[in-house]
Amino acid sequence: MMRRSFQVAARLGHRRALLRTPCILPGLDPAAAFGSSTDSLVSRFCPVKTDLKDYALPNASWCPDMLSLYQEFLEKTKSDGWVKLPSFKSNRDHIQGLKLPSGLVAASDKSDWRIFTRCIQVEGQGYEYVIFFHPFKKKSVCLFQPGPYLEGPPGLIPVGSLAVLNVQVEKIEDQKLYMSCITQSRDQETVYAKSSGVFLQWQLEEESSP
Amino acid sequence: MMRRSFQVAARLGHRRALLRTPCILPGLDPAAAFGSSTDSLVSRFCPVKTDLKDYALPNASWCPDMLSLYQEFLEKTKSDGWVKLPSFKSNRDHIQGLKLPSGLVAASDKSDWRIFTRCIQVEGQGYEYVIFFHPFKKKSVCLFQPGPYLEGPPGLIPVGSLAVLNVQVEKIEDQKLYMSCITQSRDQETVYAKSSGVFLQWQLEEESSP
Repeated sequence: MMRRSFQVAARLGHRRALLRTPCILPGLDPAAAFGSSTDSLVSRFCPVKTDLKDYALPNASWCPDMLSLYQEFLEKTKSDGWVKLPSFKSNRDHIQGLKLPSGLVAASDKSDWRIFTRCIQVEGQGYEYVIFFHPFKKKSVCLFQPGPYLEGPPGLIPVGSLAVLNVQVEKIEDQKLYMSCITQSRDQETVYAKSSGVFLQWQLEEESSP
Repeated sequence: MMRRSFQVAARLGHRRALLRTPCILPGLDPAAAFGSSTDSLVSRFCPVKTDLKDYALPNASWCPDMLSLYQEFLEKTKSDGWVKLPSFKSNRDHIQGLKLPSGLVAASDKSDWRIFTRCIQVEGQGYEYVIFFHPFKKKSVCLFQPGPYLEGPPGLIPVGSLAVLNVQVEKIEDQKLYMSCITQSRDQETVYAKSSGVFLQWQLEEESSP
């Protein structure tokens, strides 16, 4: 049996104060691509052939800005080192085949589980987004178009418009990953939000083949 | 025409760095209840009679812990100064009849808008929650039960279980509201998250009657 190790990010301890301590990375860990074997990690987490539906593909609800910037980044995947991340319905689809660290379990029932950003099934009503990442630049770009089921108070990002999230790994110290994100309009004239966080990477291994 | 002023919290400017600056309060503003006329504010924001569906009521999906703590707080609304907040489908239902500050508009079309925490319509699949608040203690308690459509990475709050959010107003300086929140299991043995933020209050007025 061949074993390879992967890194995932996960939260430090449950019972301590969490303010300003490392926290969990949602879904696929971009840091996994910073290892020595980028190609194998990309092929592991971004399968070209799969029966799973990829929700990070254009649909009729995408606004022209979202579509055109998607096409721009798609071009960059051909020669510029950018990779398009697939987005499956459940987080379990992303991590299937990997052994979780002791104490963490993925629910094993066959219920209809959905990662929260794919909880709204009608196109355009909820979270429309696609993520591109650049392993060597240690950055990701998420194109995000919120729908009318994501209403907030007046003054937030306009529903149906494009917001661009630029995520940057600022530094890596041992297992700690320091990341920042700025969310802006496409023309960068409007800053919607800025954030930063510290994430912890864990080693994961492939499960044994049956 | 009678006019009354209300306070809502809203974000400071769009074009500046937002990190560590005041940010927007989602939905109803608890600070509104700290004014001199608490009773009138409670009757404005917590209508007893309304045609709107209140989603913050028990349903068959609520776990026993959620139900029993709900009953405990409901008892406290009778004599202990706690108020149960209603939760409508759209934020516009909460703020209808109020004039928004210049530059902020609520969409005027008749589409099916939903506040993001009420975006999942099947009971128990998404956000089940109810909020109680105590105007004089300047605190709120939210009982929250995430469903399988809010899946995250393994290790987060267990799906279908109760998380209790304790929100406290730490201090008020002019228009600034400093708030903190701790999210725990009911027995307080497990801390899921801690957070804090600064919010800005704005004055709102009732719209003129036609």
